[in-house]
Amino acid sequence: MNENRTEIGSLGEFGLIDHLTRNNETVQAGTLLSIGDDGAVIDHFGKQTVISTDMLVEGVHFDLMYTPLKHLGYKSVAVNVSDIAAMMATPTHITLSIGISNRFSVEALDEFYTGVYAACEQYNIDLVGGDTTSSSSGMIISITAIGEVTPDQFVTRSGARKHDLICVSGYLGGAYLGLQLLEREKRIFLENPSIQPDLQQRSHIVGRILKPEARTDIMEWLNEQGIKPTSMIDVSDGLSSELLHICRQSRCGCVIHEEKLPVHDESREVAMEFGVDPTMCALNGGEDYELLFTIPQADYDKITAHEGISVIGYITEEEEGAHLITRSNNKHALVAQGWNAFGDQKNAN
Amino acid sequence: MNENRTEIGSLGEFGLIDHLTRNNETVQAGTLLSIGDDGAVIDHFGKQTVISTDMLVEGVHFDLMYTPLKHLGYKSVAVNVSDIAAMMATPTHITLSIGISNRFSVEALDEFYTGVYAACEQYNIDLVGGDTTSSSSGMIISITAIGEVTPDQFVTRSGARKHDLICVSGYLGGAYLGLQLLEREKRIFLENPSIQPDLQQRSHIVGRILKPEARTDIMEWLNEQGIKPTSMIDVSDGLSSELLHICRQSRCGCVIHEEKLPVHDESREVAMEFGVDPTMCALNGGEDYELLFTIPQADYDKITAHEGISVIGYITEEEEGAHLITRSNNKHALVAQGWNAFGDQKNAN
Repeated sequence: MNENRTEIGSLGEFGLIDHLTRNNETVQAGTLLSIGDDGAVIDHFGKQTVISTDMLVEGVHFDLMYTPLKHLGYKSVAVNVSDIAAMMATPTHITLSIGISNRFSVEALDEFYTGVYAACEQYNIDLVGGDTTSSSSGMIISITAIGEVTPDQFVTRSGARKHDLICVSGYLGGAYLGLQLLEREKRIFLENPSIQPDLQQRSHIVGRILKPEARTDIMEWLNEQGIKPTSMIDVSDGLSSELLHICRQSRCGCVIHEEKLPVHDESREVAMEFGVDPTMCALNGGEDYELLFTIPQADYDKITAHEGISVIGYITEEEEGAHLITRSNNKHALVAQGWNAFGDQKNAN
Repeated sequence: MNENRTEIGSLGEFGLIDHLTRNNETVQAGTLLSIGDDGAVIDHFGKQTVISTDMLVEGVHFDLMYTPLKHLGYKSVAVNVSDIAAMMATPTHITLSIGISNRFSVEALDEFYTGVYAACEQYNIDLVGGDTTSSSSGMIISITAIGEVTPDQFVTRSGARKHDLICVSGYLGGAYLGLQLLEREKRIFLENPSIQPDLQQRSHIVGRILKPEARTDIMEWLNEQGIKPTSMIDVSDGLSSELLHICRQSRCGCVIHEEKLPVHDESREVAMEFGVDPTMCALNGGEDYELLFTIPQADYDKITAHEGISVIGYITEEEEGAHLITRSNNKHALVAQGWNAFGDQKNAN
């Protein structure tokens, strides 16, 4: 027995909640009531509320063998905040429910919550409620994020119009390559536990998969510049899949250029090492959590002022379909090959 | 193979969401945007928003051997709505995330959603978002409920004052006895599958565990009568446990009378059959989802006008503790023996 291990059962459910939330401080003036009652109360001051929810399941969305619990806590919040940012709304609150087995100690849960609170601080949001329960198998995380937006200024997936420019923040494909690297190192470790991976040289892609950031900074910058995207989505399943969502819901087509896709040098190196095409990683690798959006052509000069935003193509008529123009000037139809929660699960029964 | 079985994998994640939400109609004027984007947008008209969340895990909170999926869907919504009602707020929206394995067919999920939509209709609320993912083992349900309340009219657990009357709606203990009955019938069935249980004579207690209702009607009646409770909580873990929450958070004590506890005749009969004390079932059996609240003595005449509300005791000084006075005039300290998510799980690993 590790002497630092406290059994969850020793605290009881309410003791555990008290324990986990003892350092939870609220920062929003509108948080009238937070954890400790049947619900949380939020005041609005004439704004509209945006809500989004996500569930993360061990063995499906994360592997605790190479995912530190602190990072997992941070990421769980970040991916929900990313959905709020993708509405051009400002995240304000989250609720968090987790299901865990006795396999986890209180110290392990503390690690997880340290990450959750770090993300709350990073994004200036309040954790205002939740539920903690036992799970008969792995760890389950369910988060609902709430945000606010000036009435009718939210941005959906359905407003893209012909000639609009297609923009994406940051880099694409890194998270997918980071996951491949961690999976490879796991296999090597399982075969020979004396070999410890050196991931220092791959900090970009490992960081992309383990500690993604929601691009609230991009959302805020667009607001400051007075640029209102015509449509917006966050890249969770892969660029192709998200672009096809915008095209379907906006009833339009699109053209993007391979040479414009933002791929980090480290991603190109690792893609070469794995013998995969970095463009395919950018198109189909999920979990980048960058913002993909369309803007009117008139905003081209404004948008190019931000070095971290790439203009990768433009919107066309619906009949023209969705295509990628390669460096060698070939035209390929975009297909959704993003991550499928029901296609690649590991322990289905 | 059953010819009515459609594999979840055959629809894909988005196809499945489209399928499950195809009949989802919104009724709230404030629902500006619902399922189909990164988040949902809700307008407020000067009200305050109340949010509550719950997670239900197969093998911990429900047993699919005797829980019809339609009932499970209904109950999942009702227990969250109950939390909103317990704030004296009006439920308006929910988000729903579920994790399921390939063991479930689309038809099975349809059953579950039929129950969810029935509850949405019953409580006049909108399902405005969610997430559907695979689970490596059983079914996991996570719901966040949102409600609205006139600014500063919400009711917490911390406002009970000395001399206040303690009130509870409906009947207590039935859900616990219903669960015991279903567990017994399950054991009999597993030993001899030719024996089919006849539960018709036990429709009250079986209904209490399988299809509980949130007491939004009580919340609305109190509002109409102009009765503002000083504290309120819903009975999910058992009367004793909930009363102790109110006492702790209101820094007070309480006295309740055994003879005042509302126990249904059918519950008394079944308790006798099982050789358990109906009072213990009322005190410690969970999942009744009735509203427990305190009111000023001045509202006594008003409250007695409602036949479905029982006045069971009164609030005392904190130093006096929390007690039950039995029919034989003995005094027992109340102890929290409610359901513990970490104490009685079935398949811990």
